[in-house]
Amino acid sequence: MFIPIFFLSSLLLSSSYALVQDFCVADLSAPFGPAGYSCKKPATVTVDDFVFSGLAASGNISNLIKAAVTPAFDAQFPGVNGLGISLARLDFAIGGVIPMHTHPGASEVLIVIQGSITAGFIDSANKVYFKTLNKGDVMVFPQGLLHFQVNVEKFPALAFASFSSANPGLQILDFALFGNDLPSELIEDTTFLDDAQVKKLKAILGGTG
Amino acid sequence: MFIPIFFLSSLLLSSSYALVQDFCVADLSAPFGPAGYSCKKPATVTVDDFVFSGLAASGNISNLIKAAVTPAFDAQFPGVNGLGISLARLDFAIGGVIPMHTHPGASEVLIVIQGSITAGFIDSANKVYFKTLNKGDVMVFPQGLLHFQVNVEKFPALAFASFSSANPGLQILDFALFGNDLPSELIEDTTFLDDAQVKKLKAILGGTG
Amino acid sequence: MFIPIFFLSSLLLSSSYALVQDFCVADLSAPFGPAGYSCKKPATVTVDDFVFSGLAASGNISNLIKAAVTPAFDAQFPGVNGLGISLARLDFAIGGVIPMHTHPGASEVLIVIQGSITAGFIDSANKVYFKTLNKGDVMVFPQGLLHFQVNVEKFPALAFASFSSANPGLQILDFALFGNDLPSELIEDTTFLDDAQVKKLKAILGGTG
Amino acid sequence: MFIPIFFLSSLLLSSSYALVQDFCVADLSAPFGPAGYSCKKPATVTVDDFVFSGLAASGNISNLIKAAVTPAFDAQFPGVNGLGISLARLDFAIGGVIPMHTHPGASEVLIVIQGSITAGFIDSANKVYFKTLNKGDVMVFPQGLLHFQVNVEKFPALAFASFSSANPGLQILDFALFGNDLPSELIEDTTFLDDAQVKKLKAILGGTG
Amino acid sequence: MFIPIFFLSSLLLSSSYALVQDFCVADLSAPFGPAGYSCKKPATVTVDDFVFSGLAASGNISNLIKAAVTPAFDAQFPGVNGLGISLARLDFAIGGVIPMHTHPGASEVLIVIQGSITAGFIDSANKVYFKTLNKGDVMVFPQGLLHFQVNVEKFPALAFASFSSANPGLQILDFALFGNDLPSELIEDTTFLDDAQVKKLKAILGGTG
Amino acid sequence: MFIPIFFLSSLLLSSSYALVQDFCVADLSAPFGPAGYSCKKPATVTVDDFVFSGLAASGNISNLIKAAVTPAFDAQFPGVNGLGISLARLDFAIGGVIPMHTHPGASEVLIVIQGSITAGFIDSANKVYFKTLNKGDVMVFPQGLLHFQVNVEKFPALAFASFSSANPGLQILDFALFGNDLPSELIEDTTFLDDAQVKKLKAILGGTG
Repeated sequence: MFIPIFFLSSLLLSSSYALVQDFCVADLSAPFGPAGYSCKKPATVTVDDFVFSGLAASGNISNLIKAAVTPAFDAQFPGVNGLGISLARLDFAIGGVIPMHTHPGASEVLIVIQGSITAGFIDSANKVYFKTLNKGDVMVFPQGLLHFQVNVEKFPALAFASFSSANPGLQILDFALFGNDLPSELIEDTTFLDDAQVKKLKAILGGTG
Repeated sequence: MFIPIFFLSSLLLSSSYALVQDFCVADLSAPFGPAGYSCKKPATVTVDDFVFSGLAASGNISNLIKAAVTPAFDAQFPGVNGLGISLARLDFAIGGVIPMHTHPGASEVLIVIQGSITAGFIDSANKVYFKTLNKGDVMVFPQGLLHFQVNVEKFPALAFASFSSANPGLQILDFALFGNDLPSELIEDTTFLDDAQVKKLKAILGGTG
Repeated sequence: MFIPIFFLSSLLLSSSYALVQDFCVADLSAPFGPAGYSCKKPATVTVDDFVFSGLAASGNISNLIKAAVTPAFDAQFPGVNGLGISLARLDFAIGGVIPMHTHPGASEVLIVIQGSITAGFIDSANKVYFKTLNKGDVMVFPQGLLHFQVNVEKFPALAFASFSSANPGLQILDFALFGNDLPSELIEDTTFLDDAQVKKLKAILGGTG
Repeated sequence: MFIPIFFLSSLLLSSSYALVQDFCVADLSAPFGPAGYSCKKPATVTVDDFVFSGLAASGNISNLIKAAVTPAFDAQFPGVNGLGISLARLDFAIGGVIPMHTHPGASEVLIVIQGSITAGFIDSANKVYFKTLNKGDVMVFPQGLLHFQVNVEKFPALAFASFSSANPGLQILDFALFGNDLPSELIEDTTFLDDAQVKKLKAILGGTG
Repeated sequence: MFIPIFFLSSLLLSSSYALVQDFCVADLSAPFGPAGYSCKKPATVTVDDFVFSGLAASGNISNLIKAAVTPAFDAQFPGVNGLGISLARLDFAIGGVIPMHTHPGASEVLIVIQGSITAGFIDSANKVYFKTLNKGDVMVFPQGLLHFQVNVEKFPALAFASFSSANPGLQILDFALFGNDLPSELIEDTTFLDDAQVKKLKAILGGTG
Repeated sequence: MFIPIFFLSSLLLSSSYALVQDFCVADLSAPFGPAGYSCKKPATVTVDDFVFSGLAASGNISNLIKAAVTPAFDAQFPGVNGLGISLARLDFAIGGVIPMHTHPGASEVLIVIQGSITAGFIDSANKVYFKTLNKGDVMVFPQGLLHFQVNVEKFPALAFASFSSANPGLQILDFALFGNDLPSELIEDTTFLDDAQVKKLKAILGGTG
């Protein structure tokens, strides 16, 4: 029996498939708005838009903090645009530290793949929650709260973090305070830190003013 | 008494009315993002942007499934863009079937206008919910779950479906599995269907690989 | 070959199926919150929670407005709770009127099933959009804007409305102004209506003060 | 000790800072969508995008209603685009009235800075909530409901209103009904107002039809 | 003419008004969930649930920071629960400081009512935005970013802040770091602050460990 | 100098810290609603509510599919409730298969930790996206679309998946169709599968009807 399948599919549904928005791969060169980047035309989307290999290798941890954060946010991994999820790779040398920071736009879940990590966060009531996480352990950091991860063990460590947004943001406390031109007097007035401390950290982190 | 009303209205509020966004009629030719299409300029919007007549006539049901889905999603009915709602018309000949499918982006409410329809869905715990719906009956299908509608009566049937999104998407199981180039081996490995069954349906639905 | 399927399913996934929240059928007797009603225990949910027959019959249109609105919101149809969608049936005798009103919490899409309806809305820039809709025509009314439907033809009419919320709310202008104890002076000061007009409508609609 | 800080910062994170979307200052000349306006390029954003001085002075209250609303919505204050918040200044002469109105897209919180204001709203069940607010008092008006503010005291009054959206919309009942070309017959049929009343207010508010 | 108005209203709509959820005044003693507190029964809600007088008086500024934050969040002002908006009063003596802090769950708009305030925030790219705001000036602080307000003038100052959530949270940097039992070593490792500095501030702010 | 810090903190802010909702650890025994479970009282929350060790060990892969999914959704890991994120561990023996399935309520990002996985999804336009992912590769699966993962290599594989919801749901196609009491005739009518195929799979997967 001849089955006119083209006939079936064209009649069952309108043919405007090109407009279906199951996803919205970011077109980083187009306008963007509060909900994210504009979408690539569906006809030009391929599987490679949904796959990202940039987390396969360790970030460079030969630095002051002996650690590295490698993001797979929408700017690096356009396939997650609009989908409310993204990732990052965290590499720690011995003694490595991801300094105190917040993600203004997302909660984070971290899973330890190798080594051990001491991680914690502080809530709005100033209560501290921290624990040493071993391989396979998971910890969640609620949105917008100060948190940190340090490797206090004798081995390197590796973890992956997931975020509840394609664009979680990342505000590292020391860079925010000491890595820009915020006048020292304003820093001191609003943090109660001593002038010498502020100037010492500005010297390290490139701050002026 | 002369009442300077233009004076009143210009003073009461700023005059930037053109920028008010009570609605966002889709400009299908402009960039679109995760939240939907760009908006037509308000000054060019007319009542006809908010009215759609494409559901007035039956879809063509002279096909394999003896049924037709006629969508009024944002691509067909630009007035619903951004408003979190859309519609579709479902026509059934005797024996008509809307095959097992999901809407990845919306819940659905269906109302039977004429005839009777047996409709059902399956939840994540694999529990089945199905019932024969008569004229005037309403059934809700929660977002993303497999569901179906069939006309098992001796009369044609008509229903309208509403969706909780202007762009609910529609993934019909058989088209998804057998109407493309997904390799038969992958289908078989991931669905446990027999090779002969997969190839038979690929032949009907135009699949390759 | 014996296939230990119970073994398969218990190992493939944790057994805590009872907690999966594909849906949230309203338990109207339990606490409710900003996102809707508490959910019935999944184990007690049946297909009848997802089916509603209350729209099958016409509302009583032997009244002043010669029309009736029959809602299938979460309070009447608990299966839509949390799913962002609901329905209502609109019946019109000849000359029937759904008076000027708003839905504070949802956009609406209306489809005409029988007869003709003149429907319209007014936007924040005071621009009016109205049109006579015939059988099968659809019109969308953006969230929160004043709108109305009247039957100006020589035949009864029937329409169904869908809403982008399980709890759209409904504020009918005349009931809001004249059907309660809002002091006439406050009404007059804030609407510029004449005292006689206010008192006449209060008498009709049961208002005091 | 030389501290290679540029090295630190470039290794710690990818350098694609320009794409971080902590905020989305509106580019009013670019396309806009359901979630708001397109964002200015981050490199061009300055502190002045986040500061607005347009609420410093009283609106002109030498008008019919002896009151003025001065908005700081996204169209006036592009820095709030996408942030879910905006403001307005409300000035009242003695006897000043902000007429019955709704915000289709936001809830409002009002704080009295000077004088006293009688404010109220009406809910979907037609229940009225109103009270005289003194200096420092706050009142909240839930989204989409009819509300009003009047100055019934012997002194001018000043208040600020905040909204739960950058684009709350504003539909003033009298302008919506009588300040456009909505046919008088339709107004009368859907509001039960008398023809003379409708025509009187149309004459005042510039309506035709 | 006798008009059976009770008849009208009972037929026009179902009578289940008590279940309409135009608002959700918090019942602070009932369970709460991710979207906020449970709602008080509508029948028990009065206008006083929507009015709050706790911002009328200055907070006590006879303290170390010579400033006070008085919140009108959902816990203090149950009427805003679920409405996506809240307020706070900021009082500043001469030299008063609202120390560096974040709101994890909301953007903020601040309006200066009296005096002048120097306010600023820092974004994820470490760029600083700060300015002196005079009476009537407004500034917006995007969600989750570090910000501060100081009174550097010779006069007291007063401002009101609005938030895009009924529960914005408030994490004050110094309390988060030095006002709890977070071990000094962890603080030092993750902030690069000197041990002496950490211990000095812990002594002031009550920290241990 | 004596510094009355308790005085400072009590005056700076209201003391109702216990009500701050930075997070909402699920109380699985309390009512739950559309936005998730009720929250544990903040005073009883400890760091252990935010840490989960259930993903540290492999699931049992001695089963038909030679693979295991171990979820860390809100029902297993109450700390993620309300935070829009969750995780799962995927273990694959040689030849292991995560069968064709959807997550009705979330997008997924998968990262390969060990071995190689061939993964793919199908969109609403029936276009297939699949690729072999190696160690460190990431792939995103948009919400609600059919997808699968198989291990076609000669080594076991391990991956972690993150979801954009604390309760993503999981509908496995074969369990949904063949692991319950959905009548075979309805399955056949709505999937076009042969009766023999349906009955063969029902026998394997425990279906009846």
